[in-house]
Amino acid sequence: MSKTVEVFFDFLSPPSYLAWTQIPLIAERTGANVVWRPMFTIGLHDLTGNTSPVMVPNKGKWVRADTQKYAAKYGVELNYNPHGLINILPADRAAAAAEKRGELEPLMAALYPAMMVDGKDISKPDVLADLLTSAGLDAEYYLQAIQTDEVKDHLKANTQEAADRGAFGAPTFFVGDEMFFGQDRLHFVEEALAVG
Amino acid sequence: MSKTVEVFFDFLSPPSYLAWTQIPLIAERTGANVVWRPMFTIGLHDLTGNTSPVMVPNKGKWVRADTQKYAAKYGVELNYNPHGLINILPADRAAAAAEKRGELEPLMAALYPAMMVDGKDISKPDVLADLLTSAGLDAEYYLQAIQTDEVKDHLKANTQEAADRGAFGAPTFFVGDEMFFGQDRLHFVEEALAVG
Repeated sequence: MSKTVEVFFDFLSPPSYLAWTQIPLIAERTGANVVWRPMFTIGLHDLTGNTSPVMVPNKGKWVRADTQKYAAKYGVELNYNPHGLINILPADRAAAAAEKRGELEPLMAALYPAMMVDGKDISKPDVLADLLTSAGLDAEYYLQAIQTDEVKDHLKANTQEAADRGAFGAPTFFVGDEMFFGQDRLHFVEEALAVG
Repeated sequence: MSKTVEVFFDFLSPPSYLAWTQIPLIAERTGANVVWRPMFTIGLHDLTGNTSPVMVPNKGKWVRADTQKYAAKYGVELNYNPHGLINILPADRAAAAAEKRGELEPLMAALYPAMMVDGKDISKPDVLADLLTSAGLDAEYYLQAIQTDEVKDHLKANTQEAADRGAFGAPTFFVGDEMFFGQDRLHFVEEALAVG
């Protein structure tokens, strides 16, 4: 029986992006199912008392160098977004809408490279609309959906679920009840998926 | 020319203990020199604005499970000390004294397993004395040395040096100017040491 890995992610998180580049390879090697779960990491930090590593200057500096080392190890491009810590709620809410609509994978394929490689300001509705349209998605639908309480509440519920299950940052992986934090734990995730 | 890795460690830190079990293997594989540098991690946190992961309940719980996974991966024993978060200054100061005296390796070999496997309360002078004596070290010398400003200041200076060079937690490794944080980055440390 093939196993399932749930991946709680956020578009603001470079390690979540790195996980997004590697999870398909792990799924291919292990035959696992992947279930992507958008959440709002800043909200998760608030719920759990955690803080972003960038709040500690020495840690923020190291994290940047370290994520670049992993990008090089994986052979993927990662460029810190020149727009800085943009408001990621529109993109995360679009992902919540896409999760409900069954369109999460094309939406992630459109938004992650825009945010993490091409330096686009995906907080802007017109930028978001262009990217969604290029991916063959209904941009008008998404721009309307992210204004609704239903979609906002869905993202909040995912974030609360992550906190309740033990998460404190992004990305967080679950294989059944077993939790793994960080793209640097993908080797443990793969082991858990590979075991009968 | 063989390279050198400096390892800033603390006796309170299970990941530092895990690094201590693995660094000799890496040194053997790469021919690297190892320089152990005791520091006081709580002091480093104060200097850098960092906090212990155990301050966030979800994170603390995960860190415990994760360090056990690494212990299993390395095939080493790691038992959380039943005495809890003991005052680690006497042991860290003994390490600072041993660094000056050129006896750090036997002292670490005596104190790490006592703290991380055997559950001894190494904050107690009599426990410390017994362990040092069993390791063939001059317990009387050390119990006196850890009361001196010279040794206290040496530990403080190491901690300040770690902060100034970019560290924010334990263990931290330096290969030249390149910094690596965490025993989970030993693969990058080994790569840096293996490169000509």
